[in-house]
Amino acid sequence: MRVTALAGGVGAARFLRGLVSVLDTEGDAGQSGQSGQSGQSGRSGQSGHELTVVGNTGDDITLFGLRVCPDLDTVMYTLGGGIDDERGWGRGAETWRVQEELVAYGAQPQWFGLGDRDMATHILRTQMLESGYRLGEVTEALCRRWGFPQLREQVRVRLLPMSDERVETHVVLEGPDGTSQAVHFQEWWVRLAAQPPAQRIVAVGAGEATPGPGVLEAIRTADVVVLPPSNPVVSIGTILAVPGVREALRTTTAPVVGVSPIIGGAPVRGMADACLRAIGVATTAAAVGALYADFLDGWLVDPRDGDAAVDGVTVRACPLLMRDLPATAAIAAAALELAAAARQPAP
Amino acid sequence: MRVTALAGGVGAARFLRGLVSVLDTEGDAGQSGQSGQSGQSGRSGQSGHELTVVGNTGDDITLFGLRVCPDLDTVMYTLGGGIDDERGWGRGAETWRVQEELVAYGAQPQWFGLGDRDMATHILRTQMLESGYRLGEVTEALCRRWGFPQLREQVRVRLLPMSDERVETHVVLEGPDGTSQAVHFQEWWVRLAAQPPAQRIVAVGAGEATPGPGVLEAIRTADVVVLPPSNPVVSIGTILAVPGVREALRTTTAPVVGVSPIIGGAPVRGMADACLRAIGVATTAAAVGALYADFLDGWLVDPRDGDAAVDGVTVRACPLLMRDLPATAAIAAAALELAAAARQPAP
Repeated sequence: MRVTALAGGVGAARFLRGLVSVLDTEGDAGQSGQSGQSGQSGRSGQSGHELTVVGNTGDDITLFGLRVCPDLDTVMYTLGGGIDDERGWGRGAETWRVQEELVAYGAQPQWFGLGDRDMATHILRTQMLESGYRLGEVTEALCRRWGFPQLREQVRVRLLPMSDERVETHVVLEGPDGTSQAVHFQEWWVRLAAQPPAQRIVAVGAGEATPGPGVLEAIRTADVVVLPPSNPVVSIGTILAVPGVREALRTTTAPVVGVSPIIGGAPVRGMADACLRAIGVATTAAAVGALYADFLDGWLVDPRDGDAAVDGVTVRACPLLMRDLPATAAIAAAALELAAAARQPAP
Repeated sequence: MRVTALAGGVGAARFLRGLVSVLDTEGDAGQSGQSGQSGQSGRSGQSGHELTVVGNTGDDITLFGLRVCPDLDTVMYTLGGGIDDERGWGRGAETWRVQEELVAYGAQPQWFGLGDRDMATHILRTQMLESGYRLGEVTEALCRRWGFPQLREQVRVRLLPMSDERVETHVVLEGPDGTSQAVHFQEWWVRLAAQPPAQRIVAVGAGEATPGPGVLEAIRTADVVVLPPSNPVVSIGTILAVPGVREALRTTTAPVVGVSPIIGGAPVRGMADACLRAIGVATTAAAVGALYADFLDGWLVDPRDGDAAVDGVTVRACPLLMRDLPATAAIAAAALELAAAARQPAP
């Protein structure tokens, strides 16, 4: 089976870990009842499954001259086994010597945590980008160290940046005397803890960006497209803002299913509510699902949001708290089942 | 008193630590019998001493996209109290997490040791250089964190790169089938441990380089110019290769004294003999002194080399092993005394 996922950071990465586990357990896709119309192990004729992750790059930021891609790295580290499980981001068994020294030198900013192990990733990425490689090529090279693409016996995984071009999410805040001022998303999210209300959230450069090589094709040729539980504004929303992505989702023959990042009317993690307020959308599973209604076939919500309805979308309830790997794998399996069901015309 | 020193790496840095200690102990230069013709606390009218260190940048190298200046950093860390005393280079209490990760990614080269704390220096330097600052400005900014310029109550220290422009020492080695091949100095010195004989040592770019702002003036307006014990080919030799430096040393009214890096016919540390062979000069205190004879007034050698004679240069013997700070301070004091003596016309 070919699965394509649109991913933000921590929530998506955890979900994808569960999805990889499910796909691997299912073994050859031919044995699976969920492979849908193809009924085969992907159109490539290879056995096993192919998971293509389209990663958000709107959170990317240059710090100390180093290019940092938080969402790509969170997915890479999580699937590659290098993540700090507790924090959900950055490397496990991390130390902070470089950062301590940068602080001692008085270097700014000091509000973004860059661990020593993590730093190596940014140093290499920056070096490769400055040598002329595209972000997609750099990401592929970095992922190789983490075992991609053959992450499991039955699962090959590719991580594709949504675009090789720079798209940068800015947040417009109220400035002094009724003026407005824009800050980088990370400054609002990390330094300001999303406390000052966002007037607007703008994916600068998204309108002119080209999808990364393979991105549209991965959506068009998938057997299933999944939206893991990610921030609908600054993660999924940013990917959708890249020209061609939304259209590919609308026109793909694959069922498109999403997993709600909202449980019981609140984000499980992160501050999606602060982002949703900025675009005037309620923090409910139904309202978030409605953002995707033009291309969504199935929407998985938590039983606490069991009454959520989204026009023209099959909604199913399933406990969505990604407590541990088995719980997360169950959610991923439910998403695949929903995709198989959503593929059938509604009775 | 105004002292100007031409410095390489470890040997120079240790000597300078002793020199700073001597100058500080002497207190206001007016109390010193060694301040020579000015008899004043420097021409600036300030009390205390001014030490200007002109640092070699020929060893500089770009690794992983980061600009590394080994000699400048060794002087900065040593005088600023951040050096690893045992190794003589790099930061004390150092860790190597970033490097371990770079190795895990398969990044090359793996033969140059970059510690985590040290890495912060290179990250900041690179960021500032790419922002358009000159190397001299960057060095000044980095040094501020280490307490420069007021390093001691009575001693102000400036560290000036010999040039803001890129000068890179290359070593020509015998290649296969009688061909020649050039490698960066660091590759020969660190990776190859200076084992393959150097056919030639070339300071690429030196001929077209401009001395850094303040360099020639520091030599011309000094009360004393000192050559600490540094590699005569790839440290002092490289600084001398920058147009104008040698001429300034020849014409300055200040006495110019040097401390031999050769003790008993061998380099104390490092592999200066391998460099001297490349330029056809014997590894003796006399032969190294002769390299500087056109501008040198005094040459301090170890008692084991007490018979060394250099045409037109006052040679004095003094134990030169920089065993500890008191021993090193005694050497520095002897150098200043020799300068005071050398200033007098020979009887």
